[in-house]
Formats: sequence, structure tokens, C-alpha cells
Amino acid sequence: MTFADRLRAIVGEVGCITDADRLAPHLLDQREKYQGKASILVRPANTDEVAAVVRLCAADRIPIVPQGGNTSMAGGSVPDDSGDAIILSLSRMTAIRDVDAPNYALCAEAGCVLADLQAAAADAERLLPLSLAAEGSCMIGGNISTNAGGTNVLRYGMARDQVLGLEVVLPDGQVWDGLRALRKDNTGYDLKQLFIGAEGTLGIITAAMLKLSPIPRSTCTAWLAVPDPEAAVALLARAREASGDTVSAFELEARRCVDFVLRHTPATTDPLAQAYDWYVLVELTSPANDAGLDTVVETLLEGAMADGLVLDGTIAASEAQAQALWALREYVSEAQRPEGGSIKHDVSVPVSRVPEFLHRATALVEQTIPGARPVPFGHAGDGNIHFNVSQPEGAEKQAFLARWEELNTVIHDLVMEMGGSFSAEHGIGQLKRDALAHYRQPVELELMRAIKAAVDPDGLFNPGKVI
Amino acid sequence: MTFADRLRAIVGEVGCITDADRLAPHLLDQREKYQGKASILVRPANTDEVAAVVRLCAADRIPIVPQGGNTSMAGGSVPDDSGDAIILSLSRMTAIRDVDAPNYALCAEAGCVLADLQAAAADAERLLPLSLAAEGSCMIGGNISTNAGGTNVLRYGMARDQVLGLEVVLPDGQVWDGLRALRKDNTGYDLKQLFIGAEGTLGIITAAMLKLSPIPRSTCTAWLAVPDPEAAVALLARAREASGDTVSAFELEARRCVDFVLRHTPATTDPLAQAYDWYVLVELTSPANDAGLDTVVETLLEGAMADGLVLDGTIAASEAQAQALWALREYVSEAQRPEGGSIKHDVSVPVSRVPEFLHRATALVEQTIPGARPVPFGHAGDGNIHFNVSQPEGAEKQAFLARWEELNTVIHDLVMEMGGSFSAEHGIGQLKRDALAHYRQPVELELMRAIKAAVDPDGLFNPGKVI
Repeated sequence: MTFADRLRAIVGEVGCITDADRLAPHLLDQREKYQGKASILVRPANTDEVAAVVRLCAADRIPIVPQGGNTSMAGGSVPDDSGDAIILSLSRMTAIRDVDAPNYALCAEAGCVLADLQAAAADAERLLPLSLAAEGSCMIGGNISTNAGGTNVLRYGMARDQVLGLEVVLPDGQVWDGLRALRKDNTGYDLKQLFIGAEGTLGIITAAMLKLSPIPRSTCTAWLAVPDPEAAVALLARAREASGDTVSAFELEARRCVDFVLRHTPATTDPLAQAYDWYVLVELTSPANDAGLDTVVETLLEGAMADGLVLDGTIAASEAQAQALWALREYVSEAQRPEGGSIKHDVSVPVSRVPEFLHRATALVEQTIPGARPVPFGHAGDGNIHFNVSQPEGAEKQAFLARWEELNTVIHDLVMEMGGSFSAEHGIGQLKRDALAHYRQPVELELMRAIKAAVDPDGLFNPGKVI
Repeated sequence: MTFADRLRAIVGEVGCITDADRLAPHLLDQREKYQGKASILVRPANTDEVAAVVRLCAADRIPIVPQGGNTSMAGGSVPDDSGDAIILSLSRMTAIRDVDAPNYALCAEAGCVLADLQAAAADAERLLPLSLAAEGSCMIGGNISTNAGGTNVLRYGMARDQVLGLEVVLPDGQVWDGLRALRKDNTGYDLKQLFIGAEGTLGIITAAMLKLSPIPRSTCTAWLAVPDPEAAVALLARAREASGDTVSAFELEARRCVDFVLRHTPATTDPLAQAYDWYVLVELTSPANDAGLDTVVETLLEGAMADGLVLDGTIAASEAQAQALWALREYVSEAQRPEGGSIKHDVSVPVSRVPEFLHRATALVEQTIPGARPVPFGHAGDGNIHFNVSQPEGAEKQAFLARWEELNTVIHDLVMEMGGSFSAEHGIGQLKRDALAHYRQPVELELMRAIKAAVDPDGLFNPGKVI
């Protein structure tokens, strides 16, 4: 009996894929940077099957790479090129086990697509606040395993903050049922925290109890020109206060981002009459039906313009207008492509130091690769900047991209000097494993290794990732 | 050179206390349930001194009990009666290292009293939302080590949710500097989560970077009579929605609580004309100056009264009136004392099951100890009920209290059957260590022990607590 046959005995014919064509999309990460090898993809239908597969693999010392929607930005969800590991996909575990609206909680299996869970919450007149670009294909197990971020972190926190409980299959095949739906539970070490953000290296999340919020019924979206990032930070505090802390998005972007979008994305227009150096997209939401958010923003803007914090701005008068403003933010990454190669940084600093970071990082880029064009945008409300850098105009793309690591090092050195993070929301995966080893303190690496050894002594879960 | 002399070489004369009278208050927990033994109390002045003390103890295998304000409700902050351990008090580490208002962050040493940090945040026009009865004497290191709760959890989360970073001395004397002030930082395992809520068994927290919020400038406090707990839960959802999710407290209490307070607390009065079975104290806060919260509550009440969810109510017209309403909640525990013995439960269930819990628990009390008087009150907004039970009128106090464990078992069995927690916010300490071993799954205990062994292999940090 081959190993595949023994897996089939657990998950059935449909749950075990060995066909190369069907395996292929599971072996390549979405940025097409990491091409892994594996000869088996196993797709268990339920938690018991996951546990049985893990026990079988543990007995034979076969490594397992857990995979959800395979949308990792860091190569975390594909195997290495040794061919030793099998891939365990959670994609058949798509049950929504429970929606408890009065408890503001929803229990879902790991393979549920994020957008489907957002819809299920909305059906119960609740909000699942986690929202990110890949929401149409990423799966909740992966979101939690990578502690996903997105645009709502300022208001609602990271994926970690939206998890009340987990069900996890451990490296020895035991199932931990930690699906409690409690806001308060101080009974020993908070085990779920171990698995959130561990990128599948400590356990396979099979289901999660998620915290829901009241559904927004009022929204106000505004597009504001600000003189500089300093003004944006000052504006953020004012907006939080004036709005009763209902700011759910506060996105900063440089003019170049807007230029690229206007140039390359059909049906986009500049909402303001003239060009400015910096913009803020701010969105307020409230569960109240008639929250008067427009009035709040108008009053805020009056004061901010009088004080020179805002130069010009527009408030969306309709859902369609709001979407048009969001397009100026959401298409930035895509609009970089026709401009040639882009070297990317997903970094964070304290919110108060975002301006300093932007000025210094921009100067460092010019020093390192003269002519290269910073395209900084991101979640300024929580200090997370996607500091992307497009190649100099007319430069050779591959030659520019060849300097990826060199530029990364320059920017990451700056970030670390400023008390920041070299991976704000995308995680470590394979991409930043060396950076982790380089930048984190020896005592931190020691602790991480001690935890890994305690929970997964044979190192069989997602080897080659994180630590 | 005695061990005390070697400690004095590190912390100086003032930092090493061996005098029995001065030691005494550090050996007894605040509920006067646990009398521990120790012959040395060491009070380091800074992190380096903590680390040096830990290294000295590690070399000699001397156990250490970390202590802050010694306000544990579970005997977590006093040594056992073996006399083997020294007590390490953080009370001299009281520096506020930084307040960064634009980043909504404050960095404080472990020995800072919670109320002092609330005041420092307020000075910077920010809110440190953590608030609990012991705030005038408890210390932030202990608050974080026990993942403290309090009345604001519904809106702002537990202590865990207010920690951005930690500085921790590990059992081998290494210092981990994790004092990052970031909202997003996905760079490997989130080590701070290990130490939050571990009750000093994995590391000694010496400083913390805390997340601040906008300071409330509008408040509305209302006292409402509701027909039953079911109505309270329905009202909570309505209040969260109508108020733009600005409900910062939602406290439920039975009439008996109010009766006790009115009977035993001077200068308290019933704000309503007649008596009702159940009450809700609801408080809305907003950082906006003129948030119109009174109007929101009035409109909410109109609808809720029309639908029978609220029977009567009053909105505080002044700060003094608000305090008078809060007195009806805050003095419940104290007002139980003249009524004789009280057996206490700090439990939680999903918010949606609070009514079912209250009905079933009340019936179980009557079955177990006929005539005993349940005095349930607590943070219904997050499912946490302090289900206290006063002795039957005229009963013998000690005989009643002798049934503490028996009644605990009955109530905790119910809570666990309902997917709840037998220690919602008070933690495990010594008090609930047996309960932890009894109620948590073997796989959970195994994981907790594996973590303890990985981080503190010699078991020298706060032995006899938690696990």
C-alpha cells in the first residue's frame, strides 16, 4: 500500500490528489516567487480526517504544509522544493457551524472563504470586520494562521483580535477543542494565541469562533489633500476624537500613487481640481442608522482647513462616489505594474513616526537607486506603510529587481532603528525568514525555537517557514 | 555571605527586606485566604537589578514569587507555605518611561499603580481604558500578568487587548525587550501573548507599552429596570447599534443586590419609584464633545419601553447622579458582608446564554443550599457574572462557608456544560488550580505544561500557581 493509498483510506478518492496538473496551482505562491514540490495534496473533509492524516504523517515523519486559499504574500503556503512534504488543504472544510447574533459570534471551519463569512455575518445583521484585498479567495484558517490585517485594523484590530476560540489539530494528531465563545476566560495560558500568526508551524487550525461587531448602517467616506504626512497624523487624532472614535479607515498615499492609478486604471478620475503632494482617504462608519457622520466630517474639515491641516477635500455623496474614492487606493499596487518592476516593503512604525519614516525612507531610496520612484501608501492609521518602490523610468526591469534584497535591507534597517517592524501584516513565510533571524533579538529567537520544539518536536508542520 | 547579603549586593539595603513585620503584608492575600511563608522580600529598582536577582536565584534554584499590588483575588501573588521562595516586588519600578499621544501609547514600568497611569494618560488627553475596583493599589505588571478585566471590557477588551509590547525578565535571567509600540507586527510568534495572563509563571513583566484611546468627553449613564435577563440581552444589542457601538459598560444586577446596597451603604437611594426584579446600568461614552448621547438613550428607551424590554428608567443628569447610580453597582460586594458569608463565583458564558445561566444557577443554589440567597451581578455585556451567594438568613456563617467548594463545583459544572469559564477575570492563582486540572482538557493541560517546561524548565517562577 503506497502512502497515497493509506491517505485515501482516510479521506477517500476525492480527498487525495496526486495528478500533477491538479497539484500545480498549489505548488506556486501567488506572487510566483516560490515554486515548491510535492506529490500529494490531501483534502480532508472534517476535523477527524485532518487528525487521522496528521497521525499517519507523524508516524512516518512526513512533513505537512497546511494550505488555505494559497494567497500568502510571503511564500508561507507552498512547500519547499525538497518534495518531502505533503500539502494539506483545508478547502473542503467550509461549514459555518453556528451564528450566534446575540453573542456577536460566528463559528466557521478553516476552509471558509473570508467573503462568504462576511456575507453570513451580514445576513445575521452583524459585521465580520476582517477585510483585505484577497477576501474573495483567502480562507479564514489562513487569515488566522497569518494574523491577517487589512484596512479595518485601526478600528477593529488584526485577525487576532477577532478570534474568540479555535479548534486545532496538533503535530501529534491530537485535537484541541478551544471553540469557546467567551469574552472573558482567564483559565491558564491562552493557548489560542500560540496558533494565531504561527503560520501553521505549531498546529493546523480547523475551525474558529469569531467575534462579530454591530453592522454599520451609516458611512462617510472622504478624500482629503493634506500638505504633508505630519498633517495626516495630526488629522487622525482629531478625526478619532470628533467622530466618537468611529474612524474605520485612514489611508495615506503620495501623489505618485494617484498619478499611477489615473494613468493605468480605466474610469478613474481625480476628485479634486488640482494636484497635491499627499492624500488621506478617511472612512467613518457607525451602526446607528442616522449617525450624522457627514456633519461630523464637515465640521472636522472646517477646523482642519482653517488650521492648514487639510488643503482641499471631497465627501462622497453616494455609495458609487465612495467606491470611486476607494479605487484611488485599491488599485495602486496594480497600477504599478505597467510602470515596471516594483520592490515592496510591508513595514510599520509607531503612528507618530510615520512622517519621519516616509521622509527618511524616500531619501534612502534616492541614495541607493537614484531615479527609483517611491510609491508609498497604506494604513497610516495603524502605522503600516506599504513602501513600494517602482523602477526608474526607462530602467531595465530585471536589473532593478535584482536589487530587491539590497533595498529591503536599507529600508528594514531604518524601520528597525525606528522601533518598527519589517513585516507589518504579511508575515514571515519563506520571504522574510532570514530577516527574522537577522533582526529579532537572540533571546526572541531562542524563545520562538523553544516553543516550536515544545509543540512540534519533530518539526513536521510547515517546515522552512518562520523559524 | 548569606543569600540575603548577596541580594543586598545587587539591590542595596533598601531593596532587601527580611524584617518579619515588614514582610507580613506581602505574605497574606487580600481575601485573607492564603497565608504564605518567605523570609526575604527583594525590591529591585530597575530591570537590570531584576535580571541580576533572577540569575542569582536561578543559580541557587531559589523560587521567586513576583508581586505587584498584591490584590489577587485567587491567591496568585503570595508564596506557598513552604518558605522556599523569595518574593520579588516590582513596587520600586514606578517610572513612566514615555507618553506618545499621537501614537496613542504609554510606556510604564511594572510597579506603576493603575490609577496613576490612568491619570498620566488623561494628562495627555488620552484614555487608558483598563479600570477595576483595585485600581488605586493594583500595579500594571500584575494587571497584565493576570490579564485583568473590569467594567470596560465590552468596549475596550481585557488587559491583553491594551498591551502593545512588553519587557520581560525570563527565568534564566535574560531580558527580553519587546517594548514595541506597533499596531501591526507579524514577525514570528507573538511572544508577549505568552506572558499576558500567565500570572508570573513564565516571566517577570518589568515594563509595558500600553495602547491608549481617545479620551471620553461625553458620557451618558442610565439606570434601567428590565423584566428579566432575556430583555437585558436584547437591550444590549439595541444599545450597541443605536449608540454607534459606544456602550462602555452594561452591568446587570438582581433586585437583591440593590436591596443589600440600600440597606447597608449610607447615602444610597433607589432611583426608581418602585422595586423591579432586574436592573441594567448602561453607560455610553464618546470622545466627541457634543455627542448627543442623552438623545440616543432617550430614543432607545422609548422604543425599548414600547416593546416591553424596559419597564422604567432614569438618565443621570449630572456627574453626581451618575456616581449615585454607579454606587448601586460598586457597593454590592461590600453590602453582602453584613448579610453574612458569601460564596463567590467569577464565571462567564456566551452573552446569549446569560439568562439561561442565571435561571439554572439560581435553581441549583436552592437545590443545594435551600434558603441561600443568590446575589448575581456583573458585566453582562461580556457574559461575565459575579454569581455570589449569600448565606440563608440566620444561618451559621462558618457552616455555610464550609460548603464553598461543594457549591463551586455545582456552579462550575453548569458553566462548563454551557461552554463557559470557571474563571472569567480573576484568574487561577492557587484558588482555582484544582479546577483548572479538573475542567480543562488533558490536551490543554499537556500544552500548558509543555510551554511551562520550555520557558521555565526548573519551575522557579511563581511555583504552585496556575499549572
